[in-house]
This record gives sequence, C-alpha cells and structure tokens, in this order.
Amino acid sequence: MAEAEFARPIVTVDIVLLTLHEGRLCVALLERSAQPFLGVPALIGGYLHTDEDADAEAAVRRILKAKAGLEGIFFEQLGTFASARRDPRDWSVSIAYFALVPQGALKGAANPLELRPVEAAGELPFDHQEIVTAALARLRGKGAYSTIPARLLPEVFTMSELQAIYETVMGERLDQSAFRRKVNDLDLLEVVEGEKRQTERARRPTTLYRLKTPVAVFDRRI
Amino acid sequence: MAEAEFARPIVTVDIVLLTLHEGRLCVALLERSAQPFLGVPALIGGYLHTDEDADAEAAVRRILKAKAGLEGIFFEQLGTFASARRDPRDWSVSIAYFALVPQGALKGAANPLELRPVEAAGELPFDHQEIVTAALARLRGKGAYSTIPARLLPEVFTMSELQAIYETVMGERLDQSAFRRKVNDLDLLEVVEGEKRQTERARRPTTLYRLKTPVAVFDRRI
Repeated sequence: MAEAEFARPIVTVDIVLLTLHEGRLCVALLERSAQPFLGVPALIGGYLHTDEDADAEAAVRRILKAKAGLEGIFFEQLGTFASARRDPRDWSVSIAYFALVPQGALKGAANPLELRPVEAAGELPFDHQEIVTAALARLRGKGAYSTIPARLLPEVFTMSELQAIYETVMGERLDQSAFRRKVNDLDLLEVVEGEKRQTERARRPTTLYRLKTPVAVFDRRI
Repeated sequence: MAEAEFARPIVTVDIVLLTLHEGRLCVALLERSAQPFLGVPALIGGYLHTDEDADAEAAVRRILKAKAGLEGIFFEQLGTFASARRDPRDWSVSIAYFALVPQGALKGAANPLELRPVEAAGELPFDHQEIVTAALARLRGKGAYSTIPARLLPEVFTMSELQAIYETVMGERLDQSAFRRKVNDLDLLEVVEGEKRQTERARRPTTLYRLKTPVAVFDRRI
C-alpha cells in the first residue's frame, strides 16, 4: 500500500551569487523575465526541470550557464526555504545555494547582472532578502574557518589582497601580523614561482600566492 | 508572461532523530508503513502536506508527533537531497532535518522506534545512509563550537555527564581540566541551586548544572 499522495509544491533553485565590486561584497541580481514580479531584480533562479536535471546541483549549473553565462564556479547548498506564503503562485520550495566568483568574472555574463552591496540589497521579491541574509551569515561563519572567501579572488593573489578579502567578508579589520602568522601556521598557500607583481606602494615586487587546495576547512579562526 | 511550468517532483521531509542509548549515539528508525520499502526500517519522514503544513518546519513537527509521539524537541535543517535517482517513485526532494532528544525521551513514543548506533546504522532505503552521514558530520562540526550536544542530556546534568556527551558526539577523549576550563571561560552553565546528586563514586554530592541558553554557538572549540 502506498501512502496517499498530496498536491506537490513548486520547486525552484535560487542562487545568491556573490562577488567583489568596487571593494564591496555584492550580490548579483537579474530582472525577472516572467510573472510574478516581472521586470523586478531578483536572485538568479528558476524551476527545477525534472525532465533534464539529474539533481539539484545540475539545475544550479544549468541556470548559472543559461541566465548568467557562468561555468565552473564555486557553489554550495545554503538551505531550503519552503512555505505556503513565500510565493504568490502556490506552496513553494526554494533550494537555495550561494556561489562565489572572482571580481571581473561577471563581465562575460550573457545577461546584464545588477550588482548591489549585500548590506544594502534593498527590497527583493519573494523571501529573497531573507535568503541573502542567510548567505551572508553562512559566508561569515564559514569564512572565519575556511578558504571559501579566497574564491572571491583571482587564482593568483598577494597576501595583502587575501587579507583584504577576509576583512571585507568578515566586516572587520584584522591585525596584519596575526593574519600572516595564522595563514602560515595553517599552511594554506603556495608561492607562484617566477611570478611577482610590482605594486604602486611597494619598492620590491610582491610575492604572489595561490591556494594549495581550493576549499579547506580548518579548526581555528583566521 | 509566466514561465512554462515543469512536472513537479515529490517533496518529503526526513528527520535524523539522534539520541543516546547505552552510551552510544543512536539514530531512531521506523518501519515504513507504505511502499516502496514497506516494512523496512528508515528515517522518520513523510510527504509535505501542502494543504495543512504552513512551512517545512510545520511538516517536521506534524510528522514527529504523529509518527514518534514527540513534541517540543530540538531540530534544525540539515540539507536537501534532491535528485532523479534517490526515490524509485519519481524525481524526489527530501528536505532533511536533524533532531536531538535526551536519553529516555523516546519511551513515550507512539511507534516502536528502533535505535541503531549511527556508526553502524547498516543499509537503509533511499539515500538515508547518506543523510545520516551528513547529520553526523554536521553534529560533529557544530558540536565542537556549540551547546547542541547538550540537547542529548536531560535539562539538569553533572559536569562529568556534559563532558561524556561531548566525547560521545566528537568520538574522542577530552582532557578533563581543559574541558572544565573552557566551559567556565565560555560561561555556558548555571548551577541548579539546592539540587545535588549523590553519585556512586563521589564522596560528596555532585553539583548539578543547566545551560544558560538552550543553543549557544561559540568561537572556540570546546
């Protein structure tokens, strides 16, 4: 005997796409191309396509490519927002993800993404403000214990750029020598041999680094 | 213009209900009362009822009450497992939760729950093994930085019982004086005045504690 089935809810995926823009952490929004909220900037998202998506992550990859021209970027499940009240159409489930892209990676985007500072994203349709808030809390919580914030940088970066990205994500100033000591203790970085960069301020060229592993989680707050 | 709708997937909630039993962290399983896997022990779960559940958490509360006789227990969203392959019936979304109950709280359960050690839960239907593994990883990750493991204890407990629960959850021995120092530094507990317990080993009655706040998240590993 099978349990009686109930009316199925709408299922979508929504993506909080974060990037650095003019030194601030920004969320990428896209004008909605359909009702409800036609023409209103919202999180990048869409229906799960049960006929073609193997799983929720496949839906995320399909939507990021189709709606933002993005491939191969870091994303992670954030949480699911499911209620009778979040969508005027019907009982609705949004499996939400957060994604990080380096500054500049959105230039090739097929659609005109609007970048708004996460702290001042303004009113958004559905419960998208709540989803953005959850993404920021997750990033700040994990940021202190992982290399996830470094996904906002290009593959190769200076130590100052790395510290600046942690400061931007965490929203606080970090002591330079304590930061460098922790990064060294945790053995996160490798020097990019043969490459240095001449910055405006430094007299000698600056050493460039890359992450040893793309995402590492560690025990101590950075 | 509304975007064309796609066939909607099945949506269920599944709950990894953890408790302490004979000194081990155990997951509570329930024999399935419907196809598929009729009669097979599985995670407590069921369809989302779009006609009566206001949100996913309401579905969790309804199912915990109806299927396990439990009310007012701690639960938290774990993650969503969504794919074409996880359920023989159809494309399926499981919004998974983990819940913690003190030892003994399952005695009044309406249904005969089977308790299996989480580390040896054996084969489970659907992707329930994967969900249990994710719950254990979450509990261990959060356990080191929160008071969540204390939800496995009765409201009032001794310092030794608190240390034992962290050791059971983390799967490792903790140094007694370091543990007590950290608990004191974090200011997590309050003494239950006028209550002491005579234990077998101690010559004097043991001080009893309760948590100051039910769930606290802290910065340092306990």
